[in-house]
Amino acid sequence: METIGENLRSQLRVVMVATRNPLNLGAAARAMANFGFSRLVVVNPYDVAFREARSAVGAAALLRAAETCATVADAVVDCRLVVGTTSVGHRELQHPLRRLEYGARVILRALAEGPVGLLFGSEKFGLSNEDLSHCHWLMRIPTVSQDLSMNLGQAVALCLYELARDPKAVKARPAKVAPAAAAEAEQITTLLMRALRGSGYVNPLTEASSEEKVRRLVRRLRVTARDASVLMGMLRQILWKMNSDS
Amino acid sequence: METIGENLRSQLRVVMVATRNPLNLGAAARAMANFGFSRLVVVNPYDVAFREARSAVGAAALLRAAETCATVADAVVDCRLVVGTTSVGHRELQHPLRRLEYGARVILRALAEGPVGLLFGSEKFGLSNEDLSHCHWLMRIPTVSQDLSMNLGQAVALCLYELARDPKAVKARPAKVAPAAAAEAEQITTLLMRALRGSGYVNPLTEASSEEKVRRLVRRLRVTARDASVLMGMLRQILWKMNSDS
Repeated sequence: METIGENLRSQLRVVMVATRNPLNLGAAARAMANFGFSRLVVVNPYDVAFREARSAVGAAALLRAAETCATVADAVVDCRLVVGTTSVGHRELQHPLRRLEYGARVILRALAEGPVGLLFGSEKFGLSNEDLSHCHWLMRIPTVSQDLSMNLGQAVALCLYELARDPKAVKARPAKVAPAAAAEAEQITTLLMRALRGSGYVNPLTEASSEEKVRRLVRRLRVTARDASVLMGMLRQILWKMNSDS
Repeated sequence: METIGENLRSQLRVVMVATRNPLNLGAAARAMANFGFSRLVVVNPYDVAFREARSAVGAAALLRAAETCATVADAVVDCRLVVGTTSVGHRELQHPLRRLEYGARVILRALAEGPVGLLFGSEKFGLSNEDLSHCHWLMRIPTVSQDLSMNLGQAVALCLYELARDPKAVKARPAKVAPAAAAEAEQITTLLMRALRGSGYVNPLTEASSEEKVRRLVRRLRVTARDASVLMGMLRQILWKMNSDS
């Protein structure tokens, strides 16, 4: 499985076509910054003042550097592959339709060969038939209802996330927190038993079996090394108080 | 690998804590509708009129049905697992931190056992230490820079997408468009050769090798069955015009 390096990321052109709401251009720029992409191309935005979008937190420079083009043809002029995005499926499509999970893998392979344009249509109408005619195929975000379109900024974030996603990370367990050693677990058991005895919780007749139960309970808690000393401190303080009271 | 069914989706509580901008609650609701989740819990929102958020396109009912709670403890009261989300990493974390790709798999397994709460903090500050103390572990969206936080609506969409994502779809090729049969490819070759001969493109001395080159070119085009008849129609019309002019 492919993962994406710096040089591949620079080959992707995120092409926003006829975007109406400048907040969505800002959100697209921010998602690009979040996932390490830099080339934003804006085709015929409705609001020419889009470069000031407040939603571009941390990505204002990327938004200012965006290229503007009058046509999709200009925007993708150097692209070897042009992919349109959609979350609806009821339009009669002339294009092969690939789910995001699979389409992103195809795009990753294509990025190694040259620039790839990824097109996002307007909030209200998506990509027009004219826009689509520049695309080699379409990528569909797998929403449950094909009648409910996605928010544009979210759609951009999902596509870039799937490109940046590390398939190996599915299996990579997090760095383990060091568990307490058996000796520490046993110290906790001893202190807790002392407190339980002192408080009258333990019936002297069944003390042996109680101790086994407590020992198993402490092991099931899977106490970390750091927490072990905290717990021991708590128990020692409780024992000190119990003894000083009696 | 797990994929998520209807009954598991209903076990997830999306918990938005101290959200400032009602547009983000709307965007969260819309992403939930996109990926088939329904239980939204809102803890202490800044704007009590959040149920009117315009960004909840297609998810207004879900937003209206959102539960509101005064505390995180109330919001997750029936949850067997509580997970906090973060896209920053510089805070000293007391919690195990799992990447989204892996964390989502753990959540899918937990959903089979009971309700799971997924917490999102405020736009400005994320989750507070008090909020985090209710969490079993934290999930990190793998952005390239840990200093640049994610847009809240986009973060919700990414987490829900990863839960709804179908790992098998990575390999599922799209339904193939029927390619043209060899006979059709040969018809196109014949018609194209006739047009090239008629136009003087082909040198009669090298005609045999030209025909081979054209045949190979036509095969490389991988014409679909539908496009084959269109191309043949085009070529026949061109030939008719060439013959009627001469």
